[in-house]
Amino acid sequence: MNRKVMSAEAESKTPALILVNPQLGENIGAAARIAANFGFSDLRIVNPRDGWPNPAAEAMAAGALEVITPQVYARLEDALKDIHTVYATTARPRDMEKIVYGADEAIALAKAKQSQGQTIGILFGAEKAGLHNDVIAGADAIITLPISPKFSSLNLAQAVAVIAYEWVRGEAQNQKEAQKPFEEARELPATKQDFEGMMGHLQAELEEAGYFYPPEKTDLMMRNLKAAFARGEWTTQEVQTFRGVIKALAKGRGEKWRAGRLLADRNQE
Amino acid sequence: MNRKVMSAEAESKTPALILVNPQLGENIGAAARIAANFGFSDLRIVNPRDGWPNPAAEAMAAGALEVITPQVYARLEDALKDIHTVYATTARPRDMEKIVYGADEAIALAKAKQSQGQTIGILFGAEKAGLHNDVIAGADAIITLPISPKFSSLNLAQAVAVIAYEWVRGEAQNQKEAQKPFEEARELPATKQDFEGMMGHLQAELEEAGYFYPPEKTDLMMRNLKAAFARGEWTTQEVQTFRGVIKALAKGRGEKWRAGRLLADRNQE
Repeated sequence: MNRKVMSAEAESKTPALILVNPQLGENIGAAARIAANFGFSDLRIVNPRDGWPNPAAEAMAAGALEVITPQVYARLEDALKDIHTVYATTARPRDMEKIVYGADEAIALAKAKQSQGQTIGILFGAEKAGLHNDVIAGADAIITLPISPKFSSLNLAQAVAVIAYEWVRGEAQNQKEAQKPFEEARELPATKQDFEGMMGHLQAELEEAGYFYPPEKTDLMMRNLKAAFARGEWTTQEVQTFRGVIKALAKGRGEKWRAGRLLADRNQE
Repeated sequence: MNRKVMSAEAESKTPALILVNPQLGENIGAAARIAANFGFSDLRIVNPRDGWPNPAAEAMAAGALEVITPQVYARLEDALKDIHTVYATTARPRDMEKIVYGADEAIALAKAKQSQGQTIGILFGAEKAGLHNDVIAGADAIITLPISPKFSSLNLAQAVAVIAYEWVRGEAQNQKEAQKPFEEARELPATKQDFEGMMGHLQAELEEAGYFYPPEKTDLMMRNLKAAFARGEWTTQEVQTFRGVIKALAKGRGEKWRAGRLLADRNQE
């Protein structure tokens, strides 16, 4: 087996298509059909409104559910556990400090990451509402589709079709890129589970410290922090290091205070 | 009005999307919605099985039929009267002496023809059967989509979505190239002075907290932290926010300790 064959094999891996809170079984079925059409194997469904299995999905899938078996998750965190880089698809621009890519740019980048061993996820939001801002904040980047502002309500299945097509379209082109030397082979970013663990740790300590004021702003403030941290694509090691930093900052000063008090107490004795 | 603006206007013309003998109103409605999504204005329907207007189409169009009015024709010849070049979309290869293009190639070519004043049509066949061989024979070229041979039954609406996206994809790229200076107008990253100020603040608090152990490792540990933080290209606002975080973590817990001690002292009184 020569190098080129191996690289072609690595390239043929497809990303996880992740439907977040989908409502209509019809759309899930249509997404499964599209996934099968374009040769995808990893379809994940987070908290489908009407449960799973879903007869409407089966009807729309037109046999695709015999080719592809969606994994169903109760929570997004669970669906993202093994994912290294996740993209959020949005039609509407959001007021967020996030890198925004066109589908072609995003997928070219995602494939480069994948060829370095990363597992890629692409998030699709619910009908009407799309992805929640918190979910977008946790994503590594946003993919926007070139939708007319005059009629921007894109059906969920069509969003999946466009992304799936774009992935397969670039395949041939990307095989060329894959043959470039591994100049940018940097360490994998932490999984989303580790990243969210770090952000949860930070949030818990900031809550302890009374940082969030007024408390209603907690979500917004965390979203902004997440967006900033996510851009750095921290490695597992860096995430661990920063958890040590949080711990040290939160506990250290406490210990110093305690030490100071103890010293003061002792001096008063 | 300069050349670039004029060229952008010429580019904004879209081809006629022509559904030939569509069966399900749902698919016609979905196609109308996609056409509106991607800014198409010319949707033609040839001999729809269930007549026109069609309530199922209206439901699936989700309002798109107020934005785009399909023209309905009894015969394909009538629908093609004003068309100069017509492409036939097919998923399955046909045994025919025809030029076969990928969607990206075909659309690049179609745009070149359009800029010379041609009116372009793209044909989509009926559910299941696709386009009749006679229709394909009369087309100028075939567009194939990169469909998996293992599950090649592509829904009509998805075929329209992929072609419409492919048309607009090139468009967005063109416009972007015209606007290059603005395209990456993300907020500027903080100055190095602000960034170093933040890292200095973090280091000072970590030293206070006894984080660096053994102390000789301080430089190395800070270097690793800096590398991680620098990759995110934080804005001035994000740097300020994070300085607030450092302060809260370092002081907050101290204050909690102090409060605890004071409370303990008071209880002992």
